[in-house]
Amino acid sequence: MSKQTDDFFKNIVSHAKEYGFVFPSSEIYDGLSAVYDYGQLGSELKNNLKTYWWKAMVQLNENIVGIDAAIFMHPTTWKASGHVDGFNDPMIDNKDSKKRYRADQLIEDKITRYEKDGKTEKATKLQQDLDDALSTDDLARLKAIIEEHAIVCPISGTSNWTEVRQFNLMFATQMGAMADGAEQVYLRPETAQGIFVNFLNVQKTGRMKIPFGIAQIGKAFRNEVIARQFIMRMREFEQMELQFFVRPGTEMEWYNKWKETRLKWHLALGSNPEKYRYHDHVKLAHYANAAVDIEYDFPFGFKEVEGIHSRTDFDLKQHQEFSKKKLQYFDPEINQNYIPYVVETSIGLDRLFLTVLANSLVEEDLSTEEKQDSRTVLRFHPVIAPVKAAVLPLTKKDGLPEKAREISAKLKLDYNIQYDEKDAIGKRYRRQDAIGTPFCITVDHQTLEDNTVTIRERDSMEQYRVNADELTNKIGELVSWTNLLKQLV
Amino acid sequence: MSKQTDDFFKNIVSHAKEYGFVFPSSEIYDGLSAVYDYGQLGSELKNNLKTYWWKAMVQLNENIVGIDAAIFMHPTTWKASGHVDGFNDPMIDNKDSKKRYRADQLIEDKITRYEKDGKTEKATKLQQDLDDALSTDDLARLKAIIEEHAIVCPISGTSNWTEVRQFNLMFATQMGAMADGAEQVYLRPETAQGIFVNFLNVQKTGRMKIPFGIAQIGKAFRNEVIARQFIMRMREFEQMELQFFVRPGTEMEWYNKWKETRLKWHLALGSNPEKYRYHDHVKLAHYANAAVDIEYDFPFGFKEVEGIHSRTDFDLKQHQEFSKKKLQYFDPEINQNYIPYVVETSIGLDRLFLTVLANSLVEEDLSTEEKQDSRTVLRFHPVIAPVKAAVLPLTKKDGLPEKAREISAKLKLDYNIQYDEKDAIGKRYRRQDAIGTPFCITVDHQTLEDNTVTIRERDSMEQYRVNADELTNKIGELVSWTNLLKQLV
Repeated sequence: MSKQTDDFFKNIVSHAKEYGFVFPSSEIYDGLSAVYDYGQLGSELKNNLKTYWWKAMVQLNENIVGIDAAIFMHPTTWKASGHVDGFNDPMIDNKDSKKRYRADQLIEDKITRYEKDGKTEKATKLQQDLDDALSTDDLARLKAIIEEHAIVCPISGTSNWTEVRQFNLMFATQMGAMADGAEQVYLRPETAQGIFVNFLNVQKTGRMKIPFGIAQIGKAFRNEVIARQFIMRMREFEQMELQFFVRPGTEMEWYNKWKETRLKWHLALGSNPEKYRYHDHVKLAHYANAAVDIEYDFPFGFKEVEGIHSRTDFDLKQHQEFSKKKLQYFDPEINQNYIPYVVETSIGLDRLFLTVLANSLVEEDLSTEEKQDSRTVLRFHPVIAPVKAAVLPLTKKDGLPEKAREISAKLKLDYNIQYDEKDAIGKRYRRQDAIGTPFCITVDHQTLEDNTVTIRERDSMEQYRVNADELTNKIGELVSWTNLLKQLV
Repeated sequence: MSKQTDDFFKNIVSHAKEYGFVFPSSEIYDGLSAVYDYGQLGSELKNNLKTYWWKAMVQLNENIVGIDAAIFMHPTTWKASGHVDGFNDPMIDNKDSKKRYRADQLIEDKITRYEKDGKTEKATKLQQDLDDALSTDDLARLKAIIEEHAIVCPISGTSNWTEVRQFNLMFATQMGAMADGAEQVYLRPETAQGIFVNFLNVQKTGRMKIPFGIAQIGKAFRNEVIARQFIMRMREFEQMELQFFVRPGTEMEWYNKWKETRLKWHLALGSNPEKYRYHDHVKLAHYANAAVDIEYDFPFGFKEVEGIHSRTDFDLKQHQEFSKKKLQYFDPEINQNYIPYVVETSIGLDRLFLTVLANSLVEEDLSTEEKQDSRTVLRFHPVIAPVKAAVLPLTKKDGLPEKAREISAKLKLDYNIQYDEKDAIGKRYRRQDAIGTPFCITVDHQTLEDNTVTIRERDSMEQYRVNADELTNKIGELVSWTNLLKQLV
């Protein structure tokens, strides 16, 4: 990260906290590592992003329905999915400091150091060695690399290492209270399996015909050893996933369709297209025959926001084998039974939240020849803005607060509104800019005479008068889900 | 439960499954005890109930904001709240069968048996003994009662019991992967503490003035030993909680206000008022100085759906003590610092869901002199209905499906719509009745001529023609949040 982008990232984090978007979890107890809470504005923004996704997926598409499966699932689910055996990070302990590290992370740090020292060739070679070892799950090789490159513990400074061992990333807990042993269950590490185990229930009770999709929004949990970069990689996070079931052989067609559809969805929020790119997976996961990420240009570089994967019939087949229940679909068009193929779109809601902040936070220079001036604005698309309008009496007397509250009470039936009478009007405008409110509505003495108010627009800072009775419709048009969804069809 | 109410409860459970409202979790693996998944219609209904609560709380009230805190919290939170030491069930093991039971449950079963056998006096006496033992946490007394009444293990038939011990209901898991010991954390057993630890953050960054409230919707987890009655008592469940912060001494006024406001909220959905009652707590929790439940008349009797508690300053005081951070508010009106008092409204979303099903499911006798007939209807308030309208071409030919899809595509920009062309129109109407769709829109040959369609209303079964271009407004009026919220102010 350059100094400039580093500063920008720090700005995002501090702005998010200062205005009630994101707080460190349990902050009064000095926080809980890699867990965050969404504050009064963050929870609204997050809810709006969920609504946008749900409407675009479930409401707009005749052949997509949603579910809301529990976080707890039968433990065999994770045997079948491969998570019990394969969802690991390679860990190594230093015997002197008693500290534990991710082996691959130690090596990555070494690569960075080589690069910094201008040893580009060494860095490239080491990266390749690391990739080879990881792709073959060769733990002994990882240990060997650490020794070859004389990597030491940052605490003890020694290379007195244990062997490299696998560490499972699932959180486990005991369910039930039977004397003869409680059952070990896991917090789901992904929401996808909740869809797969419900595939037949939904297909049959919903009378769904292939191709069709099941969408879900929900929490997932991963005991990341090194979680960092604010809400990018958390131990508790939220996913928005679609599993789209198709006839085998047609999956690439759907994969390509969803790849396009999903990028369009991101861009419809008014984001800068240059900030997005596709990144094809070179090394495919064991369940996939094609995979691409939609990456966003975060202050710390291009990183995945959403993944589109052609998952084949891997998951349903595994669940069929482990559950001994047929998970097949009878396709009346070709008169055949088969296990459907699956195209998945999987978005990290918290990362999406971060892209929206990064996309929206602007420090605007408003200086004129006479004086220096600037403002901080969150240029959210009006539909996802936490507060739609602020109602502001120009002064605290002459009946203006009463009139303003009357207007606010009416608008509150339809929109999230803030009422604010404290400080000078200019200062109040800036406060609303900083939280991304698209409209400020000012009530002044003229309002008492002719029932008109001033609307001040966030982005243009333009002001104009409208009749107070027209406000609901006026705001409604600009924050309308319908208009946003129209762009997607 | 009488035979009739028992049958009705069974109907609800099977209807919920048959139409995709609620599935047993991981059903292909024979389920996970006391955990359920919401299906394609259940997830919509649940989302609508959340939206109704959030709008009524956060959108309508200038002085209430929402948050979305993580499930994982710093473990000291649960020390401070009293859950680590006090959130227990009394358990007892039978040494022969090796089975474990809740001691109070064994005694409750005995009371039921006395009642069945007509031994009313014995039953009343035993109930009193049980209440006494529970209210003083007297485990030895529980053991003594079990022995005195010769209660035996249902499996082994013996009274070879261990002592009664406390069993904590929180799910614990290990976070982190440090060699020197991971940290034990808990899945939150209630969402309330997420609000308390964020109290100052929200108050300061949101510039909130007392009285004000913080609202939250989220999952909570309790390792219930005996979980039962469908989605009434689950190990993973969802809460909708408001913590309302007030000046000490004013809490009873607010407690009474919220008591009224909350019942009004339930009734605005069109529920039968006779099904609801207040139930004052006789024995108060250690943190409360007043508490009342809003109870609903479930098929298995009146049970709590929502609780309103005057929690005093107990929680904030505890967190102040354990965190060593001042959790005070400066009240400019009286020029004083104090720890606010709290009035809580806490609703079990899953129970609410069950009240809505129980309130809505009707078996209607439509028999005439000529023939017997009936239909199953879910009489949901239109605003919370999972599907707002079904678009049905009268036949599968003559361009009717194309016209119907055109109408459906337009409506889908605003509402959840189903398109259905299979089976006779009467059968399709019944299918929509069974999932609670307020409107069926039928496209017939006349539609192709004059662009009018038939609207068939779910409850009255009345039919009338309207112009297809008026559908969006027509439906919009009846499923309008604004109109529902107006009833609350």
